[in-house]
Amino acid sequence: VRKVNSGKGDSVFRADSLRAFCEEIFLSCGMAQEDAAILADSLVQANLRGVDSHGVTRVGIYVKRLKMGLVNPRPNIEVVRESDATLLVDGDNGMGQVVGVRALDLGLDKAKESGGVSVGVRRSNHYGAGAYYVQRAVARDTIAFAYSNAPPTMAPWGGVDPYVGTNPYAYGVPAGEHQPIILDMATSIVARGKIILAAERDESIPEGWAVDKRGNPTTNAREALEGSVLPFGGPKGYAISLMIDIMAGALAGAGFGPRVNSLYDNFDEPQNVGAFFQLIDIGHFAEPATFKTRVDRIIEEIKSSRKAVGTEEIFLPGEIEYRKELQRRASGIPVGSETVAELREVGRSCGVDMTAFVSQA
Amino acid sequence: VRKVNSGKGDSVFRADSLRAFCEEIFLSCGMAQEDAAILADSLVQANLRGVDSHGVTRVGIYVKRLKMGLVNPRPNIEVVRESDATLLVDGDNGMGQVVGVRALDLGLDKAKESGGVSVGVRRSNHYGAGAYYVQRAVARDTIAFAYSNAPPTMAPWGGVDPYVGTNPYAYGVPAGEHQPIILDMATSIVARGKIILAAERDESIPEGWAVDKRGNPTTNAREALEGSVLPFGGPKGYAISLMIDIMAGALAGAGFGPRVNSLYDNFDEPQNVGAFFQLIDIGHFAEPATFKTRVDRIIEEIKSSRKAVGTEEIFLPGEIEYRKELQRRASGIPVGSETVAELREVGRSCGVDMTAFVSQA
Repeated sequence: VRKVNSGKGDSVFRADSLRAFCEEIFLSCGMAQEDAAILADSLVQANLRGVDSHGVTRVGIYVKRLKMGLVNPRPNIEVVRESDATLLVDGDNGMGQVVGVRALDLGLDKAKESGGVSVGVRRSNHYGAGAYYVQRAVARDTIAFAYSNAPPTMAPWGGVDPYVGTNPYAYGVPAGEHQPIILDMATSIVARGKIILAAERDESIPEGWAVDKRGNPTTNAREALEGSVLPFGGPKGYAISLMIDIMAGALAGAGFGPRVNSLYDNFDEPQNVGAFFQLIDIGHFAEPATFKTRVDRIIEEIKSSRKAVGTEEIFLPGEIEYRKELQRRASGIPVGSETVAELREVGRSCGVDMTAFVSQA
Repeated sequence: VRKVNSGKGDSVFRADSLRAFCEEIFLSCGMAQEDAAILADSLVQANLRGVDSHGVTRVGIYVKRLKMGLVNPRPNIEVVRESDATLLVDGDNGMGQVVGVRALDLGLDKAKESGGVSVGVRRSNHYGAGAYYVQRAVARDTIAFAYSNAPPTMAPWGGVDPYVGTNPYAYGVPAGEHQPIILDMATSIVARGKIILAAERDESIPEGWAVDKRGNPTTNAREALEGSVLPFGGPKGYAISLMIDIMAGALAGAGFGPRVNSLYDNFDEPQNVGAFFQLIDIGHFAEPATFKTRVDRIIEEIKSSRKAVGTEEIFLPGEIEYRKELQRRASGIPVGSETVAELREVGRSCGVDMTAFVSQA
């Protein structure tokens, strides 16, 4: 079971120290320098944005799979099919972030030329936070959609047994004077990690989050984990999760439905996760400056619009995470004691001494 | 206020008769033969699929706007920018369906070559049901996403005043032996038409559908119409609606936010609705037959999976509408008496005698 930070007894680390420590660990697992750096950066970036569920808490399971030979530390990432507007990339079972960034960057180069590129990724692994990819695209004046499928934890609408994953949906839109709009969400009502945490603490969960294995609504976190999480927005959110499984799985040629293997529970096979990116170069539709002025106007109009009772401020997608990032860059990243202990142990098993790298902020 | 069928005292019409009648009306408004046929077909196709809110009940308002000079019956639809993978189309204020189908078809031709095409549409109008476009794409072995923005009726999350529309999100995925997967949904919890209907009948609406003009939850349909409809899935559905406004509005150069004018309430200006299509040719990623077999497997696995208590059958997106279409093709389209009366009157005002065209089934 994956660790979730408890918030109590947190240690606080500087981002660059944490990044260097993780990088050294991944290097010790046989990854190339550049790849280890990408992977560490993706995790620490998630922590900076306050998305701790996709941060350094994943180091343990990543290392475990690398050491068991379930992930290829030195993948031969290959372009299988290619046109001016499409890319199909075989990840050779590399780390999801390494494969994802390589595929994305190839797509971004193409998008500048052709204006729009669809990128399919197969034979990959858990790719971390979707925001990481769309932020990278936005930095190159590109609007991006990032989809990845995931092991089945969500039943079809009207069903009981998990079929699709909590398949994350992310998009990024560049702005002008303001921060870009960055959406990154699970297609379930809540991340499964929150239910795991509740189960560990023997707490109940709100109604509407999950059903038990008989398909009945449950507030019992343990029963929920044996059942299915529920999609956001009922059948509509489910339909988006299904779409992602079709694009990232069936179209890209990765696993789909029950053929995507669990990161945490399957230690016999690679995950065969898929991903799909849609990249649109702004300049092929409008002058980038004009478009960004429009996005700025949208942001300003929304920010200044009348607030509902009880709302202190209206936020754009990604705005809360951006503020958290500023704060954590300044005053460090809090990491829960369980995760710290696990990281120290993982480091030790890799011959990497945490104290040498990580100075607490 | 737009008419919604009551279900009581319906007349039943054959699809081809209804189509011919509508076509003749649009011809009388100065539209070209081919364009009138597309528009009539889009409406009747929505009726066939049981989506009566986007069917012939729209003829009245379309004709009104055509006659008032608010829509251009003979648009000079123009490709403004173009690459192998992108198209930006100016609709010259033509009917949304006419502009949409022209832009889509140009995009579909390109997609066969380049593998993936993004199509922006500006200076257009209400484009009817999004399913119409993705079904057209699916028939050409193309996966399609269709987005359109709409006049503001939904507040930003945390806000009170409408900013984004119920911006519809549609996708289509070809299958093999089974029917394609066709999703077409509003990004609001329910179509606004249902609230209008409740208001007309002095009925209350369920909690969670809308807020009043002070932003408080309401079950009063009239208060809801003065307030905002709520997005599906809370902030997540809102984020998707916002994305559509950015793509179809800000990127394509159409209206966005409050700059999209109402179909029903603004008789001074064109709507300036935008649309955006993302088209992906299957063959650039997989053998089409292989992909379709995978989609068939997904469909079969979902259909045969264990059902929740109270569920008789699990449906794929678009499946219920497909069954309705089979049924209505066989036994006709029921049309409410108010809509029939309005259609007869609209016909009369256009010199088109309903009885000459429409034989009841």
